[in-house]
Amino acid sequence: MVEYSIGVDLGGTNLRAAVIDRSGNILEKISAPTNMPEGREAVVSSIVGAIGKLRDKYGSGPLAGIGVAVPGFILMEPGVIVGSNNLAALEDYPIRDDISRRLGTKVILENDANAAAMGEKWMGAGRDVEDLVLLTLGTGIGGGIICGGRVLHGHVGMAGEIGHMTVDPVGNPCGCGNVGCLEKHASATAVVAMAKLLHLGEDRDEVTSEFVCQLAQAGDVKAKMVFERMGRALGVAIGNLVNIFNFPLYLMSGGMLPAWEFFMPALLEEVERRSFTYRNAKTRIEKAVLGNEAGLYGAAYLPFIE
Amino acid sequence: MVEYSIGVDLGGTNLRAAVIDRSGNILEKISAPTNMPEGREAVVSSIVGAIGKLRDKYGSGPLAGIGVAVPGFILMEPGVIVGSNNLAALEDYPIRDDISRRLGTKVILENDANAAAMGEKWMGAGRDVEDLVLLTLGTGIGGGIICGGRVLHGHVGMAGEIGHMTVDPVGNPCGCGNVGCLEKHASATAVVAMAKLLHLGEDRDEVTSEFVCQLAQAGDVKAKMVFERMGRALGVAIGNLVNIFNFPLYLMSGGMLPAWEFFMPALLEEVERRSFTYRNAKTRIEKAVLGNEAGLYGAAYLPFIE
Repeated sequence: MVEYSIGVDLGGTNLRAAVIDRSGNILEKISAPTNMPEGREAVVSSIVGAIGKLRDKYGSGPLAGIGVAVPGFILMEPGVIVGSNNLAALEDYPIRDDISRRLGTKVILENDANAAAMGEKWMGAGRDVEDLVLLTLGTGIGGGIICGGRVLHGHVGMAGEIGHMTVDPVGNPCGCGNVGCLEKHASATAVVAMAKLLHLGEDRDEVTSEFVCQLAQAGDVKAKMVFERMGRALGVAIGNLVNIFNFPLYLMSGGMLPAWEFFMPALLEEVERRSFTYRNAKTRIEKAVLGNEAGLYGAAYLPFIE
Repeated sequence: MVEYSIGVDLGGTNLRAAVIDRSGNILEKISAPTNMPEGREAVVSSIVGAIGKLRDKYGSGPLAGIGVAVPGFILMEPGVIVGSNNLAALEDYPIRDDISRRLGTKVILENDANAAAMGEKWMGAGRDVEDLVLLTLGTGIGGGIICGGRVLHGHVGMAGEIGHMTVDPVGNPCGCGNVGCLEKHASATAVVAMAKLLHLGEDRDEVTSEFVCQLAQAGDVKAKMVFERMGRALGVAIGNLVNIFNFPLYLMSGGMLPAWEFFMPALLEEVERRSFTYRNAKTRIEKAVLGNEAGLYGAAYLPFIE
């Protein structure tokens, strides 16, 4: 029997799970509702039921363990989720140990951006390095740092909050209490806010970052300005990361990637200017390649190495 | 015979060396001129002569190795110094291997701020942690990052350039090509520049950061403003570091420590505001305690762990 692990990507509405072998082959993928509105017991049952079915099919013997990627902070030592907008029902509860007990196997909880970074390192754009930083550019901006082939957690598990790096000390206000957080200048939300300042799409019911990207693709100068500002903010943050880490690879993933051609020139200009390390040490700034699967791969990888 | 190593702190004018045992006891300390103006061969002879005398006295057998802290970048793999203002004579030369060959023992080169961070971790303010960041606040600002008990080098050895983090995207110009580098807003040089903007000490031949500190101690409002601005810049940088690393300890050392009481309130206010990690995870921001000895301790420690 082939040794395998189960990676789980836990969202507010659905969970996805994949059976993956040590070589990174996906043997099976499933999706199931999390039943979040029905409360904690229903959610845990749903998770355990979905994973249990996979385990029964592939066998308990060769199961290395289960990795669960969740959107939110994780206190690594007790295995508890805190500060998750989408998984409120699971907060402050020993979810890791509960799932582990019910299934009788090792369970590892990991933040979703950290898991995605690990996935890219294992089977994606970072296969040839031991050190990388991943930025997830979506509604917010998440970050995952891989250092020496492992997730950098910090002492309670909150490391990698790159979306809340200050890129402008007098910048836009953020719900975290700060002003000038990267994610208030370079996320999809920030792109939409800037588009609205420029009255783009005022005749529409809804302005999305995709719409702003379509405008830029059609040559709209204002839409291009929006992405240029996004690129400058990202460049300040990535320039700082290069100066701090001198890692060989910085990856970006998420819903903003289609705007790559519009934000990258300004991003690279800023990094080039702000980091002599970038100018002197070979440094790659690239797209992540695994898309939605990165978190599944990363979650599945964790039981193999811990 | 007690196992020992020799730590060397190499400056432009003098080198200091210490014989230190595995428990961190300094058995002997010496100082010698580096003879920099006489060129590379004279400098290497001077280094090898000073270390050789110590080795002969304490014996070759129990010598674990030699650690050399240098101000400048080090390409870790070849063991070569690049980009050092004070040690131009030694640049782009296989200095590590040359010293090693002449003395017949293991030699480890390390950047001085990295060595100081390691020293504080071994015998100083960081003895109880495995992860810390040290900022050296002097003419410039250096940084050393200890991650899992080891120096974080990055892939060529340039990690930890905290003095060149952007703290203000439209800030003061820096010789590195960037604007708004931390060290142009919070070093002794920056303090003097701000003091001059406020016409402090205009009747003096020279304005130093010590003088500005004395003014603040005497209650001068403008001098206090200078340190308040310094604290805000440091707070932006340290807030970012806390968000990135979630380490338990951030240390500051160097010539600006006497102004601690004047820059710390603004620093802490910024960190508190800019980092929810700081507000939610126990995080210490403290003075380093080893002063000038930190680099010697750190340099001496390296042969014991490599």
